[in-house]
Amino acid sequence: MPEVVFPLDSTRGFADQRIVGHNRYHPDIPAVVEVRPGDEFRVHCREWFDGAIRNDDSADDVRDAPMSRVHALSGPFAIRGAQPGDLLVVDILDVGPLPQEDSGPLAGQGWGYTGIFARRNGGSFLVDRFPDAYKAVWDFTGQTATSRHVPGVSFTGITHPGLMATAPSAELLAKWNAREAALIATDPDRVPPLALPPEPQDAILGSLTGAERDRVAAEAARTAPPRENGGNQDIKNLTRGTRVFYPVFVPGANFSVGDLHFSQGDGEITFCGGIEMGGFLDLRVDLIKGGMDRYGVSENAIFLPGNTDPQYSEWLAFSGTSVTLDGEQRYLDSQLAYQRACLHAIDYLTTFGYRPEQAYLLLGAAPVEGRFSGVVDIPNSCATLYLPTAIFDFDVRPSATGPHRIDPGIGAPHSPT
Amino acid sequence: MPEVVFPLDSTRGFADQRIVGHNRYHPDIPAVVEVRPGDEFRVHCREWFDGAIRNDDSADDVRDAPMSRVHALSGPFAIRGAQPGDLLVVDILDVGPLPQEDSGPLAGQGWGYTGIFARRNGGSFLVDRFPDAYKAVWDFTGQTATSRHVPGVSFTGITHPGLMATAPSAELLAKWNAREAALIATDPDRVPPLALPPEPQDAILGSLTGAERDRVAAEAARTAPPRENGGNQDIKNLTRGTRVFYPVFVPGANFSVGDLHFSQGDGEITFCGGIEMGGFLDLRVDLIKGGMDRYGVSENAIFLPGNTDPQYSEWLAFSGTSVTLDGEQRYLDSQLAYQRACLHAIDYLTTFGYRPEQAYLLLGAAPVEGRFSGVVDIPNSCATLYLPTAIFDFDVRPSATGPHRIDPGIGAPHSPT
Amino acid sequence: MPEVVFPLDSTRGFADQRIVGHNRYHPDIPAVVEVRPGDEFRVHCREWFDGAIRNDDSADDVRDAPMSRVHALSGPFAIRGAQPGDLLVVDILDVGPLPQEDSGPLAGQGWGYTGIFARRNGGSFLVDRFPDAYKAVWDFTGQTATSRHVPGVSFTGITHPGLMATAPSAELLAKWNAREAALIATDPDRVPPLALPPEPQDAILGSLTGAERDRVAAEAARTAPPRENGGNQDIKNLTRGTRVFYPVFVPGANFSVGDLHFSQGDGEITFCGGIEMGGFLDLRVDLIKGGMDRYGVSENAIFLPGNTDPQYSEWLAFSGTSVTLDGEQRYLDSQLAYQRACLHAIDYLTTFGYRPEQAYLLLGAAPVEGRFSGVVDIPNSCATLYLPTAIFDFDVRPSATGPHRIDPGIGAPHSPT
Amino acid sequence: MPEVVFPLDSTRGFADQRIVGHNRYHPDIPAVVEVRPGDEFRVHCREWFDGAIRNDDSADDVRDAPMSRVHALSGPFAIRGAQPGDLLVVDILDVGPLPQEDSGPLAGQGWGYTGIFARRNGGSFLVDRFPDAYKAVWDFTGQTATSRHVPGVSFTGITHPGLMATAPSAELLAKWNAREAALIATDPDRVPPLALPPEPQDAILGSLTGAERDRVAAEAARTAPPRENGGNQDIKNLTRGTRVFYPVFVPGANFSVGDLHFSQGDGEITFCGGIEMGGFLDLRVDLIKGGMDRYGVSENAIFLPGNTDPQYSEWLAFSGTSVTLDGEQRYLDSQLAYQRACLHAIDYLTTFGYRPEQAYLLLGAAPVEGRFSGVVDIPNSCATLYLPTAIFDFDVRPSATGPHRIDPGIGAPHSPT
Repeated sequence: MPEVVFPLDSTRGFADQRIVGHNRYHPDIPAVVEVRPGDEFRVHCREWFDGAIRNDDSADDVRDAPMSRVHALSGPFAIRGAQPGDLLVVDILDVGPLPQEDSGPLAGQGWGYTGIFARRNGGSFLVDRFPDAYKAVWDFTGQTATSRHVPGVSFTGITHPGLMATAPSAELLAKWNAREAALIATDPDRVPPLALPPEPQDAILGSLTGAERDRVAAEAARTAPPRENGGNQDIKNLTRGTRVFYPVFVPGANFSVGDLHFSQGDGEITFCGGIEMGGFLDLRVDLIKGGMDRYGVSENAIFLPGNTDPQYSEWLAFSGTSVTLDGEQRYLDSQLAYQRACLHAIDYLTTFGYRPEQAYLLLGAAPVEGRFSGVVDIPNSCATLYLPTAIFDFDVRPSATGPHRIDPGIGAPHSPT
Repeated sequence: MPEVVFPLDSTRGFADQRIVGHNRYHPDIPAVVEVRPGDEFRVHCREWFDGAIRNDDSADDVRDAPMSRVHALSGPFAIRGAQPGDLLVVDILDVGPLPQEDSGPLAGQGWGYTGIFARRNGGSFLVDRFPDAYKAVWDFTGQTATSRHVPGVSFTGITHPGLMATAPSAELLAKWNAREAALIATDPDRVPPLALPPEPQDAILGSLTGAERDRVAAEAARTAPPRENGGNQDIKNLTRGTRVFYPVFVPGANFSVGDLHFSQGDGEITFCGGIEMGGFLDLRVDLIKGGMDRYGVSENAIFLPGNTDPQYSEWLAFSGTSVTLDGEQRYLDSQLAYQRACLHAIDYLTTFGYRPEQAYLLLGAAPVEGRFSGVVDIPNSCATLYLPTAIFDFDVRPSATGPHRIDPGIGAPHSPT
Repeated sequence: MPEVVFPLDSTRGFADQRIVGHNRYHPDIPAVVEVRPGDEFRVHCREWFDGAIRNDDSADDVRDAPMSRVHALSGPFAIRGAQPGDLLVVDILDVGPLPQEDSGPLAGQGWGYTGIFARRNGGSFLVDRFPDAYKAVWDFTGQTATSRHVPGVSFTGITHPGLMATAPSAELLAKWNAREAALIATDPDRVPPLALPPEPQDAILGSLTGAERDRVAAEAARTAPPRENGGNQDIKNLTRGTRVFYPVFVPGANFSVGDLHFSQGDGEITFCGGIEMGGFLDLRVDLIKGGMDRYGVSENAIFLPGNTDPQYSEWLAFSGTSVTLDGEQRYLDSQLAYQRACLHAIDYLTTFGYRPEQAYLLLGAAPVEGRFSGVVDIPNSCATLYLPTAIFDFDVRPSATGPHRIDPGIGAPHSPT
Repeated sequence: MPEVVFPLDSTRGFADQRIVGHNRYHPDIPAVVEVRPGDEFRVHCREWFDGAIRNDDSADDVRDAPMSRVHALSGPFAIRGAQPGDLLVVDILDVGPLPQEDSGPLAGQGWGYTGIFARRNGGSFLVDRFPDAYKAVWDFTGQTATSRHVPGVSFTGITHPGLMATAPSAELLAKWNAREAALIATDPDRVPPLALPPEPQDAILGSLTGAERDRVAAEAARTAPPRENGGNQDIKNLTRGTRVFYPVFVPGANFSVGDLHFSQGDGEITFCGGIEMGGFLDLRVDLIKGGMDRYGVSENAIFLPGNTDPQYSEWLAFSGTSVTLDGEQRYLDSQLAYQRACLHAIDYLTTFGYRPEQAYLLLGAAPVEGRFSGVVDIPNSCATLYLPTAIFDFDVRPSATGPHRIDPGIGAPHSPT
């Protein structure tokens, strides 16, 4: 096991650790440790809500989830010699739930959760159809996930970190704040909001204190969106063995990680989220000096995915186009097309006896593929969603005999707003 | 070989065949033949532009491509007993270029093409960066494609029909025309247009003649977009062995096919298109009576992809978010995020010596994966594009030594507007 | 379609064609045509018994199969410039059943067969348990095979040529004849025989006539075994897209092909064989001059398999060790260990209602993997056999509920000796 | 993490632990713990030689390896309610090296080894060509292995237990001893021996003591070979997520495990072995009552392999037939055919600059496939070996330019007898 450079004690809150991480981006958050190119090290990660979501049969915790407190990030880690313009090479050597803790109150202790956010708490991808909060708790057995809230399925997790990021420069941070503020200004009272502005409340900023802390808290960017620095990309394919290349914007790169997922479908469509958990990451870092220019990578991550993802060979696929449920034609809108494909999958699974929210939670959690199939055929985009048939313990394919009916069991916890 | 129910003579135009197909959708286009559930049959397909694009080193034909003449579709085929509300089961038994013709003037005779549409002729996915027309011609050797216009790559095609569709009912057709007209009306002079209205000019409507033909031509929907009937979905995964389920809207289903692709990347981002070709399809059809209600499939296709797609195990991936090139923040726009991921891939490949348009043509033609990675992390969607590294005859991965430089050769034909 | 350099007329016997192939190896069999490095060409292939096996419900034809007439080989093809010491590069561009003929009396016309050889006609891998002849006829639908003789299964074929070979030099031929004669001499009356000596009866030797024909017929080697020249290797992985490298022993290489299989399990354990068929091969040839020495390839083929094999992700596997059914311990005998693994699979499938011979025929025909798992653990080798579970239309996995019972249907035709 | 029911202290020898395992099979070795159907539990495993092989640059330890002390097995574990005739269901939830120990003197502490056994110590699969002892040490980085002794390669391990077994009944044990003694008697002085008889010296038998221990030590079977109880099958596909079904021969089943491999090529051809290591196994057990009869599984294991094996899509393959290096024709001997295929691969790699023993060690360690291709084509079997090309950091495919030459570095340690 590589040396643990960022330990977490599961009995204490994220802000009460010996080494304190952060939940905002800012160039002035000090690095917690320096590592060298070629180093391998282990990082503990807290689940993104720092324990606010419980292993129970109520969705109140998801309904009331404290968005101002996410994401609990481990780091920043400074890489010796890193300079703006370099590419930071990050090898994901291993990733998993909390290694020696298979039961307990923290997600990652043998279990994880998927939540559908309510409209007033951020909303999800299908918020118009699912305005309320729902939750599913998943149990981990080796690499397999099952849920008392979603019966009849069992799948190998596609385990990955949802968020890895370098620190922004001051200029980049200012650009983010400006462009996101401009977007918010177009509809400032929208529910859910268009974006999340800096929020000093609940900001955790490592070792910063006093006036410096207050200044940074007022400026620091929220971690919800992916941006030029990588960030909350929620790319399910960043699995074991993946090599990622991040642009470096500040000396030392100041790299941070968090938001581990035991599994996730493409899109993380429930918002909260894949199967959320805390756990560990084993990483190795290196540098390609001047790599941003040499390889034309000015922003966002590029990566070589690992080769041990769960293999499924039969898929049931659904398609959607960019027409709204109300019948309005939109112009080449793949976001909408994927929503429609997801809704089609939910409608389909409902004919087998699933409640719609169970199907929705499954699409957010299982290793489901979501693809841009056609993006130019005016005026309709076509998006497709692929569900591995082997995750069901019945035959989920269409046939002349009609759908097999399952018992939906206790269902998914639901907390109306 | 199954019986050929729709033959095409490669020496004659699409409208001059013994059995004439169609290039518009309308419930009143008569079926060319009736088949029964369980039947297997072969269909010849003409490339979508009916031979307007040539195997040469000019892109003038792409620049001037006659959009009013697409798609040359084979059919409609009536399935005995099919009724509205049924699901039509279509097995793609085999698909390929013109079987006995490996050279000649028609795409599919041993070659195919990828074109980037110019802005004034529809534009492509990246029209703002690539406003002009470009072309690449690909040669077929078995299942492998190579191009004199894009050196250094060779890949196994992911061969499929870009378009398969049932006929719309009169009500459905009216709905299409209304909603698309409403969209066009929001910006009727836009270049490229938001959508394509019915266009009697160049309409081919099977055996219809006279006043009936004129009536249908005035009402019939264009075939560019995918819609409730399946249609031009450009799903690259509809390969050999795939089973597709289509909703049936008219008695007999009146099923049509066309727009074969020797290969295509997710999105068909160049618009014109994947690797376009004529060829053949071997199909088997069946019915699930009342399947639309029983399985909750009211529109679009669902499908079980085949299991012989080209297998690649190493991918170089690019990510993008929904911020415009001008730095404007958009709200959860996966269409934009995928554009940015594609542009990142193009920028990257350019550092190896490719001209940007060569890289773009490659992304449209090779079996490239495009995924919705994050669609909820306000305000940014995250899209990812995966390029199989094995298709390059050099090492395309980033490393400390910097990019290998290739000779771009004669480049891709370019025809400025 | 590449030029057909070796055409076959399905209405005539193999020896009555315009260009006559061969069914023995000898350096003096003249090439039928010369091709050049880089050439692509099509070759028609006759099924290995030249039509002796019929699409019916009797196994008499398998019981009485004329072993002296195999294999009907297309060629030899001379490659211009090839010299002993070179490596002949052969790309399998495409392979399949007879393209325009989907019904008829010849295997490859929409159907193929698997036969279990009776003991007195060569015997099969499990001859002690299955001393009699059995047959299964398989119907082809696209790339899928099903059989009225083996119900409940359907699989994507792993289509390939069973036999591709360069011609031996006179020295090499002499070596073969000497070593095989020595083996036969150890038990000359064995049934089945240990090897097959040269047999002038039924020898087909291309254009040779008269005394030269008689001389060659007396010396020429039988085609049953694989040898230094490649030959009847029955490697199921020589599918579309495969590149094979053969040692060259005579000027021109004199390359021949035949014994096409629509599909085959590892080992071709029924002997007769995988799913046997006639059809076509599209090939491209090239040379690596002096390649035998430069790459240390003095004999047998090396190859890069294609990447479009049928993909299955769930397998039910069986193991065996080198102890005989009578309980005798053998020393590290993988041949025996694989027999035992195959018998275990048959025993298992029998509990589902299959008759043993149906299970056996399935193992010979479906894309079953056979692996050397342990070959050093004295005194037992361990061999494993992997059956794709998705080929069954019921759940073939073990569970607490016990095996699902199928109706074995009409069973496999059986012809006692 | 599941409860550790069999802990090992890395600072103490295998016989000096709090709970002592065993290295022989006998029905009277007491179970160390009882678990129930449905239980999940963790087992620590010692590397098979209990630390005799070191992380250094000498092969003396391999040359002098104490065969009488293998395999250090964890267990036996009694499963409540198991009775002879049941099938024991074992799920491999997780498997890996020593979790919290990435450096140290024990294989599994961040490293492992592959050894070629010398003739006088058991010999290897290619003992005639490699009569001496060699060793390679592999370093683990996440799931990746590299070696200072075999440069130019890096691969994802296919991690698995080499040995899992139920206890034999007294009758079964007697049968083993009888049949193996009969084999030994045919050539009792052979070097290497044909089999290993019971050997009281160095026997470790759990908690047994005194006369009972002596009796059992005299009767107990060695663990080298796989047998009816599973045992040392060295099936590289028993990876994470695999479900194995073992016959039960004694009440409680008395299940034992050991011989973990970080990776292994099919056959474990070097004998010592794949990449040997200690580590942990997380298991879940269950029973199918009466399963042996109900599913026809009287001996050996059947299994459903996991779905997260390393994926490689391009392979370079070698073939061999059953002719000895001296030119003698053997009858359908797949063991020999696989030896010849392995030798061909070694000869090939040698042209790139590898020393033969480096190539040999690589074939034993990397996830190499070995297949039975033809087993009936009298008199030659055909075996094939598949090497993933992506594990080399250079292009290992044949081409007109000839082989790339590598620097073999310090080479593999060699200890002549």
